[in-house]
Amino acid sequence: MVHTGACIAALMGQGGSQKYGLTWKWLKYFKNDRDRRDLVTCGSAAGMAAAFRAPVGGLLFALEEMTSWWRSALLWRAFFTTAVVAIVLRALIDVCLSGKCGLFGKGGLIMFDVTSANVAYQIWDVPPVLLLAVIGGIWASLYNFLQDRVLRIYNRINERRAAYKIVLALTVSIFTSCLLFGLPWLAPCRPCPSDTSEPCPTIGRNGNYKKFQCPPGHYNDLASLFFNTNDDAIKNLFSKNTDAEFHPFSMLIFFITCFFLSIFSYGIVAPAGLFVPVIVTGAAYGRFIGMMFGSHSTLNHGLFAVLGSASFLGGSMRMTVSLCVIILELTNNLLLLPLMMLVLLISKTVADAFNGNIYDLIMRAKGFPYLERHAEPYLRQLSVSDVVTGPLQLFNGIEKVGNIVHVLKTTGHNGFPVVNERPHSAAPVLFGLVLRTHLVTLLKKKAFLQNPVPAGDDAFEQFSADDFAKKGLGHGDRVEDIQLTDEEMDMFIDLHPFCNTSPFTVVETMSLAKALMLFREVGLRHLLVIPKVSGRIPVVGIITRHDFMPEHVLSLHPSLAKSKWKRLRVKLPRGVKII
Amino acid sequence: MVHTGACIAALMGQGGSQKYGLTWKWLKYFKNDRDRRDLVTCGSAAGMAAAFRAPVGGLLFALEEMTSWWRSALLWRAFFTTAVVAIVLRALIDVCLSGKCGLFGKGGLIMFDVTSANVAYQIWDVPPVLLLAVIGGIWASLYNFLQDRVLRIYNRINERRAAYKIVLALTVSIFTSCLLFGLPWLAPCRPCPSDTSEPCPTIGRNGNYKKFQCPPGHYNDLASLFFNTNDDAIKNLFSKNTDAEFHPFSMLIFFITCFFLSIFSYGIVAPAGLFVPVIVTGAAYGRFIGMMFGSHSTLNHGLFAVLGSASFLGGSMRMTVSLCVIILELTNNLLLLPLMMLVLLISKTVADAFNGNIYDLIMRAKGFPYLERHAEPYLRQLSVSDVVTGPLQLFNGIEKVGNIVHVLKTTGHNGFPVVNERPHSAAPVLFGLVLRTHLVTLLKKKAFLQNPVPAGDDAFEQFSADDFAKKGLGHGDRVEDIQLTDEEMDMFIDLHPFCNTSPFTVVETMSLAKALMLFREVGLRHLLVIPKVSGRIPVVGIITRHDFMPEHVLSLHPSLAKSKWKRLRVKLPRGVKII
Repeated sequence: MVHTGACIAALMGQGGSQKYGLTWKWLKYFKNDRDRRDLVTCGSAAGMAAAFRAPVGGLLFALEEMTSWWRSALLWRAFFTTAVVAIVLRALIDVCLSGKCGLFGKGGLIMFDVTSANVAYQIWDVPPVLLLAVIGGIWASLYNFLQDRVLRIYNRINERRAAYKIVLALTVSIFTSCLLFGLPWLAPCRPCPSDTSEPCPTIGRNGNYKKFQCPPGHYNDLASLFFNTNDDAIKNLFSKNTDAEFHPFSMLIFFITCFFLSIFSYGIVAPAGLFVPVIVTGAAYGRFIGMMFGSHSTLNHGLFAVLGSASFLGGSMRMTVSLCVIILELTNNLLLLPLMMLVLLISKTVADAFNGNIYDLIMRAKGFPYLERHAEPYLRQLSVSDVVTGPLQLFNGIEKVGNIVHVLKTTGHNGFPVVNERPHSAAPVLFGLVLRTHLVTLLKKKAFLQNPVPAGDDAFEQFSADDFAKKGLGHGDRVEDIQLTDEEMDMFIDLHPFCNTSPFTVVETMSLAKALMLFREVGLRHLLVIPKVSGRIPVVGIITRHDFMPEHVLSLHPSLAKSKWKRLRVKLPRGVKII
Repeated sequence: MVHTGACIAALMGQGGSQKYGLTWKWLKYFKNDRDRRDLVTCGSAAGMAAAFRAPVGGLLFALEEMTSWWRSALLWRAFFTTAVVAIVLRALIDVCLSGKCGLFGKGGLIMFDVTSANVAYQIWDVPPVLLLAVIGGIWASLYNFLQDRVLRIYNRINERRAAYKIVLALTVSIFTSCLLFGLPWLAPCRPCPSDTSEPCPTIGRNGNYKKFQCPPGHYNDLASLFFNTNDDAIKNLFSKNTDAEFHPFSMLIFFITCFFLSIFSYGIVAPAGLFVPVIVTGAAYGRFIGMMFGSHSTLNHGLFAVLGSASFLGGSMRMTVSLCVIILELTNNLLLLPLMMLVLLISKTVADAFNGNIYDLIMRAKGFPYLERHAEPYLRQLSVSDVVTGPLQLFNGIEKVGNIVHVLKTTGHNGFPVVNERPHSAAPVLFGLVLRTHLVTLLKKKAFLQNPVPAGDDAFEQFSADDFAKKGLGHGDRVEDIQLTDEEMDMFIDLHPFCNTSPFTVVETMSLAKALMLFREVGLRHLLVIPKVSGRIPVVGIITRHDFMPEHVLSLHPSLAKSKWKRLRVKLPRGVKII
């Protein structure tokens, strides 16, 4: 759902789909980097809000986990989006109350309601919860570790051919089916409780007490867990007054199965989520811990399951506020909040000692150039000039068409510094930054000059704003597609009107960690590096997101490899911090 | 409480109070700008969390409203702080359950609990709620407007003498007392309902049905509202099944009285909050609207009061997520969330059409140099060079002591560019930025050189990190207190080792709006402006927070005064945005 929301938003950011005739004219106002990024954030917030019926949680999730660049205007927009989601959801629940819409209408706004008028817990309930949080954090970091490894193997398989993908997906699904059908045979039949309001055993699709292979009047508790949708399994696990329904051994089997199955199902071509599997696994884990403590704790097993889910989510996704609010909105139990915050805090801290959060691991496994929130320590040892790789491609303020075409064809850079040299200026002066897409537009429109003279104020006349709007993915013009005659190649373009004349610059001696902060906080694409001593050249290089990636930095400076970071760390006087 | 939390945090950031012997050695690690700022944020989050027993809401409040600079590390720290608050609160509630702690233990974690198992509302309940939100937004913006005016008048009175302050406070409090005691006489006595579980009429401190001047068996509904603490009044207003308790006329009087009294009470020397008065006023307003609609709506008057509070809070404070979560945590009613989001959305939008949020207005009335979240349109018309005011004070890399003392004594600047000139460098080169506090430390320690030669690597030897730590407010050394002989005045200081050698710089042609974003997002104190064409001087000026203030900008460029902004706005091609 998160993905779907983001995709719809991205599509709108591209101005709709021309292929399917879904274009609107007003969508062109979103055709720029910033608005498209904001749209995708809002879309994912909406997806999350709709998936878990948790509007505030969805919004916070998008802001805490999705965005690398947070603006206050974005907060307001995302709030608007999720408010609309909440209102539409609520209205549809009203419409669907009579059961016309399949599974949707049931359950109301709160998916796994565990309200109980007085959740009483005492000070002696805290140690079990602490233990649950610590062990949960360790399991969750193990989960992240295994997920990362499995994903890297899957990536290698999926890269090969389409057939490999399908075979992999088939293998996993057949294995899963066998396991889910085979495992309940291990659990013994248990007699139905006499005081239940539900039919027992149940044979239909819904119900807590599945019959499976058992004689009448008995049920198989493991089958009750496995032969349900994930949502129903979570509801069962979270429910109170069901402490006697499950056997600890069944719960342990369910936990271990869920743990490994969710790791192996993610990353195959079939869509699979992270959130719900982690909640199920955590709930099974929490309930098992609750069973171990038995009557030593005043918390019922359902609340243990909620806290177990919290510890798994906190340990795997490492979010704090958003998880807190999401679980709150899922379970509607405000009184549990102090314990929940405690669990999230501890499981995140414990898991942070072992590895990174699951989203970062997945992004790294997929090779996306995602900028880390925190600058790695070794970035402080380097200055920006250490990662600038040459040769730098410069353009003159008034540049020959042939040169531009050559540079665009031979490099993949997306931004180029523009420098005024003699005779247009006494000394070389950095004029600004010009983007590849804008250059391609200039070439396509053939806005050429016969002689190297400034174009004047009417340079914009043959362009409209649409020409410089950001195109959809794969819809941009390519320099290879533009046909130019030899005569045109000898003409000139005045780049001055099309430059960003005040690009962000940093001096070459700035620490890489500081530059990274600037890059992230301001949401840059290109950062120009200027020399400390202004000499022959007014610009030393250009830095993009890729230059901050650990792979790139460590390939340039192999001596900074992991084992040696500590040795290289500059010894600072006590109390001094690099800000 | 928010204030108290922030003050405790600020005190810790100063390393405790030396006056009262409250110092700890480890606090020195917080003695820098960044950590002190983070501490204050966490402190205010903790205060909010404790005041409203809303840990997540408090955290979001601090992040949405308090911080101008948001780091992900801060989120984690604030979460830690509020989690501790929540756990301590919960533990103390357990301890105080028996009523040992005065008013504290009662009510549990949720202050104004309005849970009801099924909050049923239908599609025809939406128009009344919309109306409530729109009118609430208008009232709230009027509230902001009047509050601003009153505060400016109060400020002028308070500035004069201590006696004026006291007289003002006395006047307001006597007036308030008279009003509160006089108004209930206006309300007629009403017969007690027969089906109430509470004693009616009540004469003691607590209770819903105050007797006041009424005969036995009757109560005065206005007195029931006025003669209560604010908390109890809110509880009464939010409660369900009390639709018949209050008369619309009494409610209207109560609303108007609260509205004006809360405006007049804020800003006198006695501490007064904003949050609780706005909640009370909004609740009275909402309940009045609920009474007007009467039986046309399925929502009970208590829920109308909750939504009324939301509309006032949203319209006055203009927050979204944090208000949503705070109200959720105050009332524990998750099912009302869609309506609440709708109300917040609308009242904020309506109120935004009239004026700014109350905190911004107060900060401006108090004259704090607070950077706006959004760049004003006229800032886009200016470049940074337009607001740089001279003369610029530069230092040489190796500077004469006498010069430094002279500059420090004659200017109030806190940062100075350091430039290498001949003979130390071929052309003038911007070396870095040195802070006033560091210069004062150098002068105090008399780290002087006889001759203008570089100091070498041992320059740090006579300093410890503590010397450069940020001092508490009013505890910094002043240049006037340093006694120097004439001989020392002729000596030199090598500033190179004490500079920030990679300060953030912008080119003089950058738009002021863009520079403001950089300043805010990266959390700067000083921003160096470098010339477009590197000529005789390597730095044009230095920009601080004050240079972005509207007063400063408009004093330099009076032609930008409000009426002319539109005329000056550059006509951009349609669809083009300044990013």
